[in-house]
Amino acid sequence: MNSTMQNISVEKVKKSKIEEVDFNNLAFGSVFTDHMLVCDYKDGAWETPKVIPYQPISLDPSAKIFHYGQSIFEGMKAYKDDNNKTWLFRPLENFKRLNISAKRMAIPELPEEFFMEGLKTLLEVDNQWIPQTEGSSMYIRPFIFASGNGFHASPADAYKFIICLAPSGSYFSGKVKVLIEEKYSRSANGGVGYAKTGGNYAGQFYPTQLAVAKGYSQVVWTDDHNHEYIEEAGAMNIFIRIDDTLITGPTSDRILDGITRKSILQLAEKKGIKTEVRKITVTEVIEAAKNGRLKEMFGAGTAAVVSPISGFGYKGVDYDLPELESSFASQIKKDITDIQYNRAEDPFGWRVGL
Amino acid sequence: MNSTMQNISVEKVKKSKIEEVDFNNLAFGSVFTDHMLVCDYKDGAWETPKVIPYQPISLDPSAKIFHYGQSIFEGMKAYKDDNNKTWLFRPLENFKRLNISAKRMAIPELPEEFFMEGLKTLLEVDNQWIPQTEGSSMYIRPFIFASGNGFHASPADAYKFIICLAPSGSYFSGKVKVLIEEKYSRSANGGVGYAKTGGNYAGQFYPTQLAVAKGYSQVVWTDDHNHEYIEEAGAMNIFIRIDDTLITGPTSDRILDGITRKSILQLAEKKGIKTEVRKITVTEVIEAAKNGRLKEMFGAGTAAVVSPISGFGYKGVDYDLPELESSFASQIKKDITDIQYNRAEDPFGWRVGL
Repeated sequence: MNSTMQNISVEKVKKSKIEEVDFNNLAFGSVFTDHMLVCDYKDGAWETPKVIPYQPISLDPSAKIFHYGQSIFEGMKAYKDDNNKTWLFRPLENFKRLNISAKRMAIPELPEEFFMEGLKTLLEVDNQWIPQTEGSSMYIRPFIFASGNGFHASPADAYKFIICLAPSGSYFSGKVKVLIEEKYSRSANGGVGYAKTGGNYAGQFYPTQLAVAKGYSQVVWTDDHNHEYIEEAGAMNIFIRIDDTLITGPTSDRILDGITRKSILQLAEKKGIKTEVRKITVTEVIEAAKNGRLKEMFGAGTAAVVSPISGFGYKGVDYDLPELESSFASQIKKDITDIQYNRAEDPFGWRVGL
Repeated sequence: MNSTMQNISVEKVKKSKIEEVDFNNLAFGSVFTDHMLVCDYKDGAWETPKVIPYQPISLDPSAKIFHYGQSIFEGMKAYKDDNNKTWLFRPLENFKRLNISAKRMAIPELPEEFFMEGLKTLLEVDNQWIPQTEGSSMYIRPFIFASGNGFHASPADAYKFIICLAPSGSYFSGKVKVLIEEKYSRSANGGVGYAKTGGNYAGQFYPTQLAVAKGYSQVVWTDDHNHEYIEEAGAMNIFIRIDDTLITGPTSDRILDGITRKSILQLAEKKGIKTEVRKITVTEVIEAAKNGRLKEMFGAGTAAVVSPISGFGYKGVDYDLPELESSFASQIKKDITDIQYNRAEDPFGWRVGL
């Protein structure tokens, strides 16, 4: 973890492709900037990162990423305010979680300055790509994967840390209807559910396809033992409002320690909203829905920020959530994005200027 | 799944690198043959596979394999008999399991002939690479991964199916000491434990490192609820002999349906060894060890075939297993490999000549 990083070298593209991009019609994570940050782990150490033109990665067919799933990632965003200044949101939290994921996946931990200086350098080089259109932002994807070779089922001897930038529009549009899962599971006790590792996502795709075929957008994950506890919603943390209390499950080795999740808890508390971090049973949610005490459910994550849920299905029955004039979801989304875009005071010190 | 496959094209290397390989000192899965089979999934269909020179794979940094872990694989072997004829062992079972894994990981299923004809064509092209030295064989690695691009957490729109060949020596040497896991878990009920997907392996590396630091070679996985049931040993199925009964756990959504596992069950039955497929508790194994009824434990899988266990640790206590003159493990390993190398009759019809 100790490191003496040299200066980050920058190799610029000959011609930018920014002219080809329609910034008024950005999808999520499908257009990439001119450059990327690349950092190799070889012979037991992370080498100094460098900024190079965005380009394909070449790997041996025996590279362990193809076979044994050693991969981790983070999701972050950069925002521009009205004065064209660039802001990040709690970037050190992403760095810390990247290394928590790294440890669980037997990937060598990354020195802090490689991450922070690498990120800043890349964002400076591609600064003109950061969208200023309403609702858009620069989605940042730091990731590490096993690039070392060989079919032995053991950790690789080489890794690549890369940061890519994708100017993006919103992740979901509108409210989503979710299905509370009764059969499939996202994670095991003692497993890797708390790590942002590829396998946690691939495992969700099939159950989500089944839910989509039934008319839902996302799965609400429950525990793998009795499917009695509410855990996550799709690839997001989940919040449930019963009466005027906002509840979310405690983080664990099964539940991701979401940065949006913990920011919402702090924000809500400051706003005077009563919060509870405790296990939530499906039974409790159904009861609350039946007797009118269930007011809101929403997902929380970097990509969507806050994703309101319009209703849910469980054991063949659909439950609708009420339409609220001023929901916690919309209030909180506004508060967080106002901080992110430097439109409001930041009492928590979350915003980091570039 | 329906397909009209064209002939598989073969592009041969200009110069073979076979002269560089020491076939008397082969490690496991670290030397690769001159060619590989590649088959692309695009626009909703698998294209006809082709044999090309073994070469790097080039991918966009946003390829989903790097981010969301959509990958599956198989492990197989090819053997040469004394007459230089090549044999495969139950290859259709690998094909079927590949598609079972594909379904769970939301990867498009592969047509049978793409797999079988592709495999045969590749093995014919690189036939002179199949080792004839004792204990060596050609390890075959078919795999599929998400090559489509984009950061949206959803299944990719493009995949690559590849087969690589690695002339290999034995996977483990000698007996292994294992640790019965009390904290970490391999899989969840309703999860992906039965699929051969990368994430199942990456998740094992860290707990295995912790076990290695305590002097063990592998972890024996237990259920994630109470760690009371024995499930797998490292990346292998596990067999436990109590008195003269050979016991293994039932396959489930947590336990891989191993081809070596089911072959051993059939072989043992034919030999008159009493077998039981049932849940095994840790308590039962400890009791049997204490009162001398625990005779053997071994892992079973394609790479190691049968991997005898010399002893195990549990809650800080080490238990040694007896040295047997004619163990079930050694008898069964000889029987299976005799069938694989065409040194014995094959009453089950497992062997498939090339």
